[in-house]
Amino acid sequence: MMQRKEARLVAMKRQRTIAWEDPVATAALGRQLSGREFLDRIRKGEIPLPPIAVTLGMSLVEVGEGMAAFELQPGEHLYNPLGTVHGGVMCTILDSAMSCAVHTLVPPGRGYTTAELKVNFVRPITAETPRVRAEGKVIHPGRQLATAEGRIVDERGRLYAHGTATCMIFDVREPR
Amino acid sequence: MMQRKEARLVAMKRQRTIAWEDPVATAALGRQLSGREFLDRIRKGEIPLPPIAVTLGMSLVEVGEGMAAFELQPGEHLYNPLGTVHGGVMCTILDSAMSCAVHTLVPPGRGYTTAELKVNFVRPITAETPRVRAEGKVIHPGRQLATAEGRIVDERGRLYAHGTATCMIFDVREPR
Amino acid sequence: MMQRKEARLVAMKRQRTIAWEDPVATAALGRQLSGREFLDRIRKGEIPLPPIAVTLGMSLVEVGEGMAAFELQPGEHLYNPLGTVHGGVMCTILDSAMSCAVHTLVPPGRGYTTAELKVNFVRPITAETPRVRAEGKVIHPGRQLATAEGRIVDERGRLYAHGTATCMIFDVREPR
Amino acid sequence: MMQRKEARLVAMKRQRTIAWEDPVATAALGRQLSGREFLDRIRKGEIPLPPIAVTLGMSLVEVGEGMAAFELQPGEHLYNPLGTVHGGVMCTILDSAMSCAVHTLVPPGRGYTTAELKVNFVRPITAETPRVRAEGKVIHPGRQLATAEGRIVDERGRLYAHGTATCMIFDVREPR
Repeated sequence: MMQRKEARLVAMKRQRTIAWEDPVATAALGRQLSGREFLDRIRKGEIPLPPIAVTLGMSLVEVGEGMAAFELQPGEHLYNPLGTVHGGVMCTILDSAMSCAVHTLVPPGRGYTTAELKVNFVRPITAETPRVRAEGKVIHPGRQLATAEGRIVDERGRLYAHGTATCMIFDVREPR
Repeated sequence: MMQRKEARLVAMKRQRTIAWEDPVATAALGRQLSGREFLDRIRKGEIPLPPIAVTLGMSLVEVGEGMAAFELQPGEHLYNPLGTVHGGVMCTILDSAMSCAVHTLVPPGRGYTTAELKVNFVRPITAETPRVRAEGKVIHPGRQLATAEGRIVDERGRLYAHGTATCMIFDVREPR
Repeated sequence: MMQRKEARLVAMKRQRTIAWEDPVATAALGRQLSGREFLDRIRKGEIPLPPIAVTLGMSLVEVGEGMAAFELQPGEHLYNPLGTVHGGVMCTILDSAMSCAVHTLVPPGRGYTTAELKVNFVRPITAETPRVRAEGKVIHPGRQLATAEGRIVDERGRLYAHGTATCMIFDVREPR
Repeated sequence: MMQRKEARLVAMKRQRTIAWEDPVATAALGRQLSGREFLDRIRKGEIPLPPIAVTLGMSLVEVGEGMAAFELQPGEHLYNPLGTVHGGVMCTILDSAMSCAVHTLVPPGRGYTTAELKVNFVRPITAETPRVRAEGKVIHPGRQLATAEGRIVDERGRLYAHGTATCMIFDVREPR
């Protein structure tokens, strides 16, 4: 009996349940606000985190003019076949940081999309890595194309990855 | 009673539980095999899928000499604040396809790591998008640096994203 | 006398004189044509090659729907401090091939600009390398953003570099 | 007579003659020095500028620990068919700045090569643009892979392009 219970506990350690709120409703709300206000309200918990943040375990921790920062708690649920956090997860948190940095400059009535992203991986992240932070900053705040850069570091300042992104900004016409 | 049950069902639609097996043990096994065999056995289900594949909902569907393909079932749990699948998820499946394409060329006793990746996003993926496939192919099979390219398409051949990656290949010395 | 003449010949080997025609006039002409026609007429020699092509020693050799190819004669005048053709030259010929591939799809009254480019260098080019060819092909022919890929190969098919580019396409308003 | 002479002068305005010294000898010398010393001596004029610098009109103006800066005098000889300085020229000066930034960290007996480069173009350069400066800085000084970033700005601080690069560092074995 004892052994079986332990086995179940071990198995439970490798299980994860997440829950989220309707992301389409949230996105519709977002289109009525400036990017800065939308993101600020997500950060404060007034607007729900998007599902991907819950799925991966990341949170929006700072929003400024032309900048945004996310934190990620590394965990085994993010592992690739090589036994480290998948590089795509680093791309996701960097993409979030860089794209949201651009989003803070987008006024109501305008939208944006990320056209491309480039990431260099310089050090692996494992479940033993402390919480990491991805900070994105706008480099070029163009009217139609904006660029941003981002870095993932831990609390000791060690660098894990860095990247750049290009976003397109456009007029949004809401469906009636 | 009826209403309450319905409410619970609605809530359950926005919940997801995943389970996975010890990825460190799997990775250790992988270091004893050629990349080709390791990936082939993951594809056949003989070796467990890495946790990130379970977390996101992707699977390895094809492995060849210098190529690999993954499939992803788009879902709301992958959504960003704009109401579409997060670009980082596209990076993850492309990274998997391109890196595994290189991995198929790595013999036992050698390892590899992805040094950098670049992705262009050309069309959004939503929960309504049919299952998508990311196919990675090696471009330059160098001894120390290898490059690969990848594309995400749906069954109708529509393109969602494309990218390139650079991997470093090196000798592995197992800890004793 | 003899020695002096030889010395001059040696010196002349390391000298290069180029000449070109007014590129601003050519560009103005280009804005009145479709990209396809403009490039076709450059290829046929009916419109002068742009100065950069003369400066480096490259020529436009093929123009098609969504594709363009340039050739470069490698030479010492392109060398970097490491004793090989500068990677930036490979970027230039790839940029030309990829951007012109997009340009072939641009109708009169619309213009384009290259937003970003990414190049992998896989093999050095030296003065001993035979003539190389860079071929660019459109991947995604979007209305506002188009992407292209390109490769530099020699006549034996050996790969030297490959890349991708993102171009923005927009309406042109001529100054009156 | 008068008219003909004037016509020749106009034609001469669109002509350029460059001269350089044997780049292979320079490169061989470079392999015996640390990257820092090699580049410092090029900057001081004690070792000749590489031909590409003469071909384009750029010069090495600053060398530091993990950094390097080049200047370029924009001119018509660098123009593309659109009537602006070719993006590949921006790639070349950025590649120089970023690669040389890495080179400053390479000791004697080790060499490096640039594996890939990514550049965002944010503003066109024309013959009217004042002298521009590309500054490269190392981001990650890895033992085998190093990354760097770079920006092109003019004296007023206006940004024209920015990029990142990945270099591989390796042991050099001289041919005997």
